[in-house]
Amino acid sequence: MLYIDREELESLSSRIFEALGLLPEDARASAEVLVAADAKGIRSHGTARLKRYADGLRAGIIKARAQPLVLQETPISLALDAQGGVGLSIGRNTMEKVISKAAETGVGVSSIRNSNHFGIAGYYAEMAARRDMIGIAMTNTAALGVPTNAREAAFGTNPIAFAAPSLDGKIFCLDMSTTAVTRGKIEVYEREGKPLPPGWAVGTDGLVSTDPVSLLEDMLHLRGGGLLPLGGDGEGGHKGYGLGVMVDILCAVASGGTFGRAVRDSEITSALVCHFFLAIRLDLFRPAEDFKKDMSRMLADLNSLRPAEGAERVYYAGQREKEVEEESRRRGIALEEGVWETLCTLAEDLGLSVKEKPRGP
Amino acid sequence: MLYIDREELESLSSRIFEALGLLPEDARASAEVLVAADAKGIRSHGTARLKRYADGLRAGIIKARAQPLVLQETPISLALDAQGGVGLSIGRNTMEKVISKAAETGVGVSSIRNSNHFGIAGYYAEMAARRDMIGIAMTNTAALGVPTNAREAAFGTNPIAFAAPSLDGKIFCLDMSTTAVTRGKIEVYEREGKPLPPGWAVGTDGLVSTDPVSLLEDMLHLRGGGLLPLGGDGEGGHKGYGLGVMVDILCAVASGGTFGRAVRDSEITSALVCHFFLAIRLDLFRPAEDFKKDMSRMLADLNSLRPAEGAERVYYAGQREKEVEEESRRRGIALEEGVWETLCTLAEDLGLSVKEKPRGP
Repeated sequence: MLYIDREELESLSSRIFEALGLLPEDARASAEVLVAADAKGIRSHGTARLKRYADGLRAGIIKARAQPLVLQETPISLALDAQGGVGLSIGRNTMEKVISKAAETGVGVSSIRNSNHFGIAGYYAEMAARRDMIGIAMTNTAALGVPTNAREAAFGTNPIAFAAPSLDGKIFCLDMSTTAVTRGKIEVYEREGKPLPPGWAVGTDGLVSTDPVSLLEDMLHLRGGGLLPLGGDGEGGHKGYGLGVMVDILCAVASGGTFGRAVRDSEITSALVCHFFLAIRLDLFRPAEDFKKDMSRMLADLNSLRPAEGAERVYYAGQREKEVEEESRRRGIALEEGVWETLCTLAEDLGLSVKEKPRGP
Repeated sequence: MLYIDREELESLSSRIFEALGLLPEDARASAEVLVAADAKGIRSHGTARLKRYADGLRAGIIKARAQPLVLQETPISLALDAQGGVGLSIGRNTMEKVISKAAETGVGVSSIRNSNHFGIAGYYAEMAARRDMIGIAMTNTAALGVPTNAREAAFGTNPIAFAAPSLDGKIFCLDMSTTAVTRGKIEVYEREGKPLPPGWAVGTDGLVSTDPVSLLEDMLHLRGGGLLPLGGDGEGGHKGYGLGVMVDILCAVASGGTFGRAVRDSEITSALVCHFFLAIRLDLFRPAEDFKKDMSRMLADLNSLRPAEGAERVYYAGQREKEVEEESRRRGIALEEGVWETLCTLAEDLGLSVKEKPRGP
């Protein structure tokens, strides 16, 4: 593990994005979203993904300078066509607009089609929470989730993020996929040669599969099978399946984008996807300070619950990530050596200079 | 099973509510919500519950004529104190107001404290969907759900309902608790003397329990243990736990009501609870007809998926309930004989006349 300064990592990522054709402000915004994921310890969605964005940009699948087209706008709403632009900066810019609308009217809502992978959904929800609003962010993704009773995938891992502020800058932030797990988790089990727990995935016959190797093969070649919805196989899974479709409706049916089975990743980059953002001002209901005082009571109460036998602590959503973020502030952002090397190679290919290798642990 | 005419069942339920002190229009609204659950085959939330509402009303815990107090109101929002009134009619009346606001401005949102059990959340979400809006309805409930890593309950079964319209009156309607199952399901296993599947509940030590008898005992006496969140024990459960807390935030922290462990059912009726409603006009994003055409394509595609080995059909959320509702229209609403008898006894106690027993199957 290397430990790298947040600003340094943001600056390098931003320079890479700019060299790939993004406008300077979009490059900075995109870098900030990516590095925020690393800082929170969500490394699957951090700078480790930069190579994949770069591949998409170089292939012209992600359009570096595409700016969103306004389809419809009211004082509270915004329907956009992202025209294949960069999901990270489009997400950030759109959530800014949604927050401005909410600041004026109380609520802001947006549905966006033809965008690209936007990183962690929680980033956008937290933007609203820091402004004394409830924030919601969603995106659809390539269809990997298999509906209850089916044998083929028809909805994405379709994450839902929800954030609400407490006192002292604390934020309750839920950021969850609506499938039982994501493909990344299956890949970890494949690398480690371990069987999957039941309740994560089904094979081409629609029955529970515990073999990560054949599962990933079948998913890759669209032979059927895939991830189970949150709630697992049988009855319980209808909840995750329903939530996944809900995300597809708000993101893609609302904006007129691509949904369901039609959303497919390419070999080099992620599929064109759709997003949904919502911000609601706390003081529509009561003074923001009163809301945050009750949030603080609630979060303290959750932390005070007696842990289960063998467990150490009871967390609330977003708490662990916040602790990692503070750790990152103290000692730098932890980055796998391989990720750093890929970033450096990418930078050098683009003719950028890179400072010396950051310090070890 | 008895089969009873929808209007007849509504009329009897409405007369009972009126005899219990409700205003005629509130009695009718409450009856309609309850009977809608029976018509959809969600019998746990239909007229089988009328006795429990009646007990609450007679004990003065549910206030028959309490009218909601407006705490804050804007053209898009409404914060209410229900003052202990009847959740069913308050839910219906409030969702009407939320829909009116959305009709004017595009979005309507409400958070309501100090209300009572409001029946099926899906009813309210569907009200919006029938008006070319996306509808969301939530309520918190008595704390029965145990957070990930904990050994005691701290959030309710906190249901989320989401509805969006398709063509031909079809509606996608998800209505789900955020715990793995509800207490009612545990009671069924207890009656049948069957062990619980793992992943539904934990005992007083916070570890998975499969014994419904000791579980219900411990839950009743607040000794600890309870229902697992959607996603089960371990990591996956943090999603259901997070969703349950999200519902608590939108319903109770927003309105200034009671949340978390403080929400407790009494022996005779349900706890004072809080609700949240949201309606978003489809045409904020695109013409409603275009939205519904895509919904229709999506739902048809889900229905066309190849079923898993041994499964017959792939449904979308709300489809089964809609089919039962059509069956109810054709042959009457199926009602257990015992439920009918309880209704008749209740009516007679209140000095109401009851028509002859409805026809059998």
